[in-house]
Amino acid sequence: MKEDMTKLTQNDRVAELLGIRLAAVDIGYSLAELTIRQDHLNGVGTLHGGIIFSLADYAFAVAVNSGGVPTLAVNANISYFKPPRGPVVRAEAKVISSGRKVCCCEVEIRDDDGTPVAKFSGTGYRKTVPSKGE
Amino acid sequence: MKEDMTKLTQNDRVAELLGIRLAAVDIGYSLAELTIRQDHLNGVGTLHGGIIFSLADYAFAVAVNSGGVPTLAVNANISYFKPPRGPVVRAEAKVISSGRKVCCCEVEIRDDDGTPVAKFSGTGYRKTVPSKGE
Amino acid sequence: MKEDMTKLTQNDRVAELLGIRLAAVDIGYSLAELTIRQDHLNGVGTLHGGIIFSLADYAFAVAVNSGGVPTLAVNANISYFKPPRGPVVRAEAKVISSGRKVCCCEVEIRDDDGTPVAKFSGTGYRKTVPSKGE
Amino acid sequence: MKEDMTKLTQNDRVAELLGIRLAAVDIGYSLAELTIRQDHLNGVGTLHGGIIFSLADYAFAVAVNSGGVPTLAVNANISYFKPPRGPVVRAEAKVISSGRKVCCCEVEIRDDDGTPVAKFSGTGYRKTVPSKGE
Repeated sequence: MKEDMTKLTQNDRVAELLGIRLAAVDIGYSLAELTIRQDHLNGVGTLHGGIIFSLADYAFAVAVNSGGVPTLAVNANISYFKPPRGPVVRAEAKVISSGRKVCCCEVEIRDDDGTPVAKFSGTGYRKTVPSKGE
Repeated sequence: MKEDMTKLTQNDRVAELLGIRLAAVDIGYSLAELTIRQDHLNGVGTLHGGIIFSLADYAFAVAVNSGGVPTLAVNANISYFKPPRGPVVRAEAKVISSGRKVCCCEVEIRDDDGTPVAKFSGTGYRKTVPSKGE
Repeated sequence: MKEDMTKLTQNDRVAELLGIRLAAVDIGYSLAELTIRQDHLNGVGTLHGGIIFSLADYAFAVAVNSGGVPTLAVNANISYFKPPRGPVVRAEAKVISSGRKVCCCEVEIRDDDGTPVAKFSGTGYRKTVPSKGE
Repeated sequence: MKEDMTKLTQNDRVAELLGIRLAAVDIGYSLAELTIRQDHLNGVGTLHGGIIFSLADYAFAVAVNSGGVPTLAVNANISYFKPPRGPVVRAEAKVISSGRKVCCCEVEIRDDDGTPVAKFSGTGYRKTVPSKGE
């Protein structure tokens, strides 16, 4: 698993462009983080919604692919609560439902104080069937 | 309106980072576009979901703010259909419902052939009340 | 197609319970309607969000199944705009993207005046593959 | 608070029509349940998506209104995992973010075995400002 993940994350040029780091990974789980830069800000000077989404989407992708079955996002929903305080933002992804072809993974985005910043929920479609039937 | 928009878009460092361009703007409407670069690709070599979302989110922000009332996204939903073909992706945003405090704006993302790539729907919250009561 | 749809709609006890009627159906399309009753209202006297959703969900189900491939909703998103005026509410469903295993269908809910009441977007998963590969 | 809730739930004719019961309520929290009836089933004999949504929406409404500030749903997202087993379905709602004008509330829907059936996330808009500024 770790090799696949390393490959998948090494090939992710967008994570590199945005400065997203993978902090932890397990089957159906991941933790990603981002140190906020000036070029991550929107017109009103807070962390851009697209950056928050990209961080969450990255954590989602790692979590749903960590079992070894190629899985694509077909839908994602994000609710924004408040701008983050402090220099680092973290996204923690957990697969909450895993079927043969469809899965659901939620991602909590928190700032350095642990205050919730946003919540992401994604639906993944598995391109191949898991080997153990689930 | 145009001056506000120019200011808002000039201050958007993320649009600059990602190479997003504003092609058209009107009240409750915008068209944004992106020329796909190598560092926009995900681990499997197609345009990253976070980049597609960021392009749509930018078009949303311009459209919902184009009337002059500061408006924030509180929720966004995106469905992904297929990877884009050709070098350019376009996002066309239209406000479909506009209340005193809450609005809804949809964004169609299409590739160079005009084929639908994704659909975005965002809920905006207006920080101040529109001057004409709407 | 019509026979399958008749069977599917005849077996839908919830549509019967709520008074939902199918007004039109075609491949990837449907129109459903509802005459508002007293027991469709919420605590503040307007049409219940769950009834609006159920009407839209019914239109979605007919539209995505009208091609003959059994299709289930895996995710749905609804935005509410304003309470309907007049006695009848209509939901018009259109499939906007149709892949081998996943499809997306949008539903516009309007009141008797044609004013938008809500917008629904659903992701469907096809239990079998369409015979013509699409 | 309890009186307001009793009034709100007593006036909810849809809950009565569908057989939804309120099992517990607290500030920012509720638990609702439903005993599955024949007329809750869809064309393929499982609990109708619109009924699951309505149960979750009811739990959402009670939880977001339990603090005494009138709050409306402006957006809701639901992911369906699997049909419920056993005669009873429960929806547990928790407000996860509460701002002055906007809140977010998640609802977990589980069957009699405690197996997740669906997950609902709603965005609420407060019609008046909370008395204590939050």
